[in-house]
Amino acid sequence: MSPASRRPRSTARDIERYGALFAERTKVMKSSAMRDLMALTERDDVISLAGGLPDTSTFPPDSYASLMSEVAARSCARALQYGPTEGLTAVKRCIAEVMRAEGMEADEDELLVTTGGQQVIDLVCKTLLDPGDVVVCEAPTYPGAVPTFSTYQADVVQVTMDRDGMRTHELEATLDELERSGHRPKFIYTVPNFHNPAGVTLSLERRHELLRIVSERELLVLEDNPYGLLRYEGGALPTLRSLDEDFIIYAGTFSKILSPGVRLGWTCAPAPVLAKMNLGKQASDLCSSSISQYFVSAYFESGPWEDYVRSLIEIYRRRRDVMLDTLAEHFPREAQWTHPEGGLFIWVTLPDYIDTTDLLARALEEHVAFVPGRAAFVDGRGGSAMRLNFSGVGEGEIREGIRRIGEVVREQVALYGTLTGTTTRAARSDPQPAEQAGLPPGEPEPPSADVANVLQLRRKRA
Amino acid sequence: MSPASRRPRSTARDIERYGALFAERTKVMKSSAMRDLMALTERDDVISLAGGLPDTSTFPPDSYASLMSEVAARSCARALQYGPTEGLTAVKRCIAEVMRAEGMEADEDELLVTTGGQQVIDLVCKTLLDPGDVVVCEAPTYPGAVPTFSTYQADVVQVTMDRDGMRTHELEATLDELERSGHRPKFIYTVPNFHNPAGVTLSLERRHELLRIVSERELLVLEDNPYGLLRYEGGALPTLRSLDEDFIIYAGTFSKILSPGVRLGWTCAPAPVLAKMNLGKQASDLCSSSISQYFVSAYFESGPWEDYVRSLIEIYRRRRDVMLDTLAEHFPREAQWTHPEGGLFIWVTLPDYIDTTDLLARALEEHVAFVPGRAAFVDGRGGSAMRLNFSGVGEGEIREGIRRIGEVVREQVALYGTLTGTTTRAARSDPQPAEQAGLPPGEPEPPSADVANVLQLRRKRA
Repeated sequence: MSPASRRPRSTARDIERYGALFAERTKVMKSSAMRDLMALTERDDVISLAGGLPDTSTFPPDSYASLMSEVAARSCARALQYGPTEGLTAVKRCIAEVMRAEGMEADEDELLVTTGGQQVIDLVCKTLLDPGDVVVCEAPTYPGAVPTFSTYQADVVQVTMDRDGMRTHELEATLDELERSGHRPKFIYTVPNFHNPAGVTLSLERRHELLRIVSERELLVLEDNPYGLLRYEGGALPTLRSLDEDFIIYAGTFSKILSPGVRLGWTCAPAPVLAKMNLGKQASDLCSSSISQYFVSAYFESGPWEDYVRSLIEIYRRRRDVMLDTLAEHFPREAQWTHPEGGLFIWVTLPDYIDTTDLLARALEEHVAFVPGRAAFVDGRGGSAMRLNFSGVGEGEIREGIRRIGEVVREQVALYGTLTGTTTRAARSDPQPAEQAGLPPGEPEPPSADVANVLQLRRKRA
Repeated sequence: MSPASRRPRSTARDIERYGALFAERTKVMKSSAMRDLMALTERDDVISLAGGLPDTSTFPPDSYASLMSEVAARSCARALQYGPTEGLTAVKRCIAEVMRAEGMEADEDELLVTTGGQQVIDLVCKTLLDPGDVVVCEAPTYPGAVPTFSTYQADVVQVTMDRDGMRTHELEATLDELERSGHRPKFIYTVPNFHNPAGVTLSLERRHELLRIVSERELLVLEDNPYGLLRYEGGALPTLRSLDEDFIIYAGTFSKILSPGVRLGWTCAPAPVLAKMNLGKQASDLCSSSISQYFVSAYFESGPWEDYVRSLIEIYRRRRDVMLDTLAEHFPREAQWTHPEGGLFIWVTLPDYIDTTDLLARALEEHVAFVPGRAAFVDGRGGSAMRLNFSGVGEGEIREGIRRIGEVVREQVALYGTLTGTTTRAARSDPQPAEQAGLPPGEPEPPSADVANVLQLRRKRA
């Protein structure tokens, strides 16, 4: 059929026609706000603080070319060929090195190479979740995990955080409440280090608490640790996996220490779980890119991989500081934000009369983008929060981007002031201390109101 | 925890402990025989006719290196970065070129780049299948699709083939029978060209028949066409997608015309279906390897991609002929096999007293491997068949591999003769004509016995 004679597609009738064939899960499948914004981040005229992109422009093109020449000379046919589902042995050795740098030991047979860290979340869901099964995660949670949980028709329960990460008292109360209603979560999903999107880190005390809780109840934890090595201040905390191997499914990735474009992550999991995840991966994509795997393997052989991570840390630390300073300068006193010790994100909480989804539309008119907080919740909360990324753009753009967002925020605050008759002085506020947190302070915390709230919301959804 | 103090994993108790947490779907998740054999294909002392591997050793390492240098110079930071979920525009242009070479037109917005053709099958299942939904496919079917269908808890109904591909009369009778029992298949999965594993091609008449059937009933077809451009004799037939755009979800891949190691395939589908598949992909792996995508894009820019395909056709045609000749020379007269006009596989049918799963164990003692036929069925059929691959190994290895398999087959035939008192002359047979087919002859075919048989088996499973 020639292009000219082809009829227009996707009419309303079409959608109706195919709609009847769609699986139940597609009704809850939603695009993550983060991914939809990818289209915007490609527009040159938008300063995007919305992505979760590392800065790949600092990787030397010469190294790229010479590593690839090395692969061509030594392993061309194999780099172009299928590999084993579990991943190349050489890549597993690189993974073991990275995990060792974070205080963990991993044998090759405990590892599965995946198509990015995202695939770990997908495969864990595939292995553990039947429709209606409960997953417990943080509130807010990684926006990219929300559509994955939806796809597997999970019933997601979110536990609030403070500056010390997930509130373990609340977690325990939530688990009790779930138990009383006959539910046992299939796993607890957590990003303990430099949380995406909250920017906070689970304290050592809470790590031990979390492990005590899951060990007593024999619950699995999916520990997602993409940013652990990107620490800009303070000392490293032990990963959950380094403290307990029985209940932890660990997820790592090369995305933030080398390149997300390689689409290579991994999981280190208890053997029976790993075996099922391997079968799930076979059915999903057979194996991950061999081209990427040989590149990673050549890279690790070429010299100390930690040097590049150290250079990223220097860059990202400066960008974080610029963002914190500029926030203090341009955001009104009504705004609060977290002070991340590492990672890529700052979480900003605005007065609850501001809807950040609406605000994004306004911000895009000013050619600047962020992730609205709702993307990090399953239940519509987060409407007055936003996630800001400081790794993907330069210091000048951070300054200008935050200035522009600050302006539209102040605009809203001023408008609210006019409408309610309260002072508009807030529209031009004094600088805020950078260490001010958008989340409530850390321990001690009462395991009360929020829990009930979460469960109530959950019931409303059911 | 130090490595020394780590306790052994995966005890029986462990499996029990985690087993209770596994999703229902994991009970039917099985490893495809093909993938398990990957471990064997890596053993240097085994001649593997079991894989589905193209020969990547003919791709010039110099080209690999210079294409990658090109990418380094022009797009290093972007090749290392996340890309859009739908795939790079440049790669979609390559896909449109490949599809044009097979007589199809595709707009960029009709395409989704995937992590290999395998991910298309996964995403179609994710989009369309609820547990218990019916999928209709060929008998035998692609062994790699079997675990994917299982993962989505599909009820798979297989329609037999002859030398003209899927028997459309039987398909129609099967659909009638399904309708009477209140079932409407979510989609029909077919490999029309050089079927994996059967080696046969759907005739033009049957293509029109199939389209008439699905158009009358408004059913979707997943047309999986990895080998269409690898034709060694005869004229190309139009793809289903080129004859009808309403009901066809088309799956293509770079695996067989360039490299499976890039793990890049694609789908071209009706817009509402494509939109859901895109969401499914976001949740699965965000996007496919950018490194791979920039490599493919540079490759297509570097010169006519068809030249390499032509060189592969020459190599594979010779290998196919060598395999057909050697089969005729070394296999007993009781054996039958297909004569593929293209693709990578020959399907051999042995006397029904031979179990090819048992035979594989015996063959491995002789350091040779094939895929037992059962891997291509959901219901235990195919026990006396095997799939042989002629693309992945050289002519000498094909000769030696087939000789060894022929020997163990003749051994079984002779043993059977001794046990039953029939002649053992068959153990050393006259050469069989290469054009003899392991599948029944083509049209006309009665839509009778087999259908009932399939449905009966299906009921037994339910």
